[in-house]
Amino acid sequence: MTANILFAAHAKRWAEYQQPLINALNAAGVDFDLRSEFSPDQVDYIVYAPNSEVQDFTPYTRLKAVLNLWAGVETITGNATLKVPLARMVDHGLKQGMVEWVTGHVLRHHLGMDAHIVNPDHRWKPTTQALAHDRPVTMLGMGELGRACALSLASIGFPVTGWSRTPRDIDTITCLHGDGGLQTALSRGEIIVLLLPDTPATTHLLNAKAIAAMPRGVVIINPGRGPLIDDDALLDGLNTGQVGHATLDVFEVEPLPEEHPFWAHPNVTVTPHIASETCADTASQTIAENVRRGQAGEGFLHLVNRDLGY
Amino acid sequence: MTANILFAAHAKRWAEYQQPLINALNAAGVDFDLRSEFSPDQVDYIVYAPNSEVQDFTPYTRLKAVLNLWAGVETITGNATLKVPLARMVDHGLKQGMVEWVTGHVLRHHLGMDAHIVNPDHRWKPTTQALAHDRPVTMLGMGELGRACALSLASIGFPVTGWSRTPRDIDTITCLHGDGGLQTALSRGEIIVLLLPDTPATTHLLNAKAIAAMPRGVVIINPGRGPLIDDDALLDGLNTGQVGHATLDVFEVEPLPEEHPFWAHPNVTVTPHIASETCADTASQTIAENVRRGQAGEGFLHLVNRDLGY
Repeated sequence: MTANILFAAHAKRWAEYQQPLINALNAAGVDFDLRSEFSPDQVDYIVYAPNSEVQDFTPYTRLKAVLNLWAGVETITGNATLKVPLARMVDHGLKQGMVEWVTGHVLRHHLGMDAHIVNPDHRWKPTTQALAHDRPVTMLGMGELGRACALSLASIGFPVTGWSRTPRDIDTITCLHGDGGLQTALSRGEIIVLLLPDTPATTHLLNAKAIAAMPRGVVIINPGRGPLIDDDALLDGLNTGQVGHATLDVFEVEPLPEEHPFWAHPNVTVTPHIASETCADTASQTIAENVRRGQAGEGFLHLVNRDLGY
Repeated sequence: MTANILFAAHAKRWAEYQQPLINALNAAGVDFDLRSEFSPDQVDYIVYAPNSEVQDFTPYTRLKAVLNLWAGVETITGNATLKVPLARMVDHGLKQGMVEWVTGHVLRHHLGMDAHIVNPDHRWKPTTQALAHDRPVTMLGMGELGRACALSLASIGFPVTGWSRTPRDIDTITCLHGDGGLQTALSRGEIIVLLLPDTPATTHLLNAKAIAAMPRGVVIINPGRGPLIDDDALLDGLNTGQVGHATLDVFEVEPLPEEHPFWAHPNVTVTPHIASETCADTASQTIAENVRRGQAGEGFLHLVNRDLGY
């Protein structure tokens, strides 16, 4: 039976994804009809960008699943009209990009690169470098992305503590979990990386209390989600020296407004939400596999637990 | 029989190394007498800094080996009074430090970090990032350090071409060698890392011809030895845009003189010979193992081929 697939996202995404999706669906052996417009009652699957025009799923009466184009699902999990399974995007390309960005910025801070990249008085000032095994890193969030980044850092030699809501067991990572483990995880990291999902439970997880629990001079790296951080608490921490530096890729409002104090703060690096992005070819493979599974009556991959919000 | 070991290096090195060497020699089960002064005709081994006062080895009539404190041996290989085996330092700590520095700076350039670290007009300017598998890296020099760095970069996903004087065979690296392989290796790397020894054959290996063989906009990273690069040719390459950026840790004259044009060049990053340094604890283990071998009549590790100069 032909799978009718609606691509619900901005037109420029359609231009980017149409051919990769056709290629991936053909490679998966799916009989499909892929369009950017469909009569709602004919649609079996929606390939979905949460900012698309489709916000009311009620007319999609034979819908089998919504396959999200992105990892973040925070704007859709609360949609009461969505009654069918919702799958997150888990994209090899996106994961790889995140590993590269996180590994690069952790090494940047570990090695103290900025002092040499910005060295206006041209001074030769050698310093003794700690090796990675003397630089503990804490990863907050041990989902697909956090785990991949934690393993990359551990393979270089950093002692990595990973914190997640539920228990994990990974050979080369010290895994802590739940409220009880959070204070320990925070207190251990000279560099702390945020790769948690944006859920009601994680909003402003990095508040004044959490920042006070960190070692003095801590480096905070946030390629996760903007609302994880209480910006005012972070600015206070930066101004007292409790936080040595913050490298931030995501913000509560994007683009980061010109007047936001992060821009001018000497100990903040702003990157414009570039840590990683979905790669059309590999993302299309993930979507095609889920359509194949739906057509074959198999379970979907990467389903969102909508009560937890991720 | 007691091994009489002379520590021939600056006094501050003696302060740094005395206890780690004692610990390592004891751990290796060696019967030893370690001093910073000895009657030359009593000395079995010299733990040696090439800039020490010992430059004439003739009076050391029962000397069995010279164990270099550093990886670089260029100032000692030509010493005609040295008739006994010379061992390079191969230090796990030094190797690890080099892997961290090289991996970090390759990722820095790959990710285009500098544009965000130095962003004086506070612009939000997202760019699409290539993944590592689309960023070929060339490693010139596949000795202990080059090989370790090449493997680290390959494990992150970079396609790595390694070039060395003699053939190598490493699973995850495309290995080229000799004069015939050099042009290909140079032409392939968007990022080129120099980890060659300083020998007559490698002096100014990076000259105008070599730079012309590289892809336009190439990034050159030199944590190896200063004389590998013809500074004038590199400056020409930077000024025409043939070379996009150079990150240099070592120089023909160190500290790099204040008036050297590298300091002020917008596309040069100078780091003050900090990429990696010998770590007293792990270096002492290497030395102790060679003393143990000498006493047991076993072959020494890490011997220098003095005709080749490394």
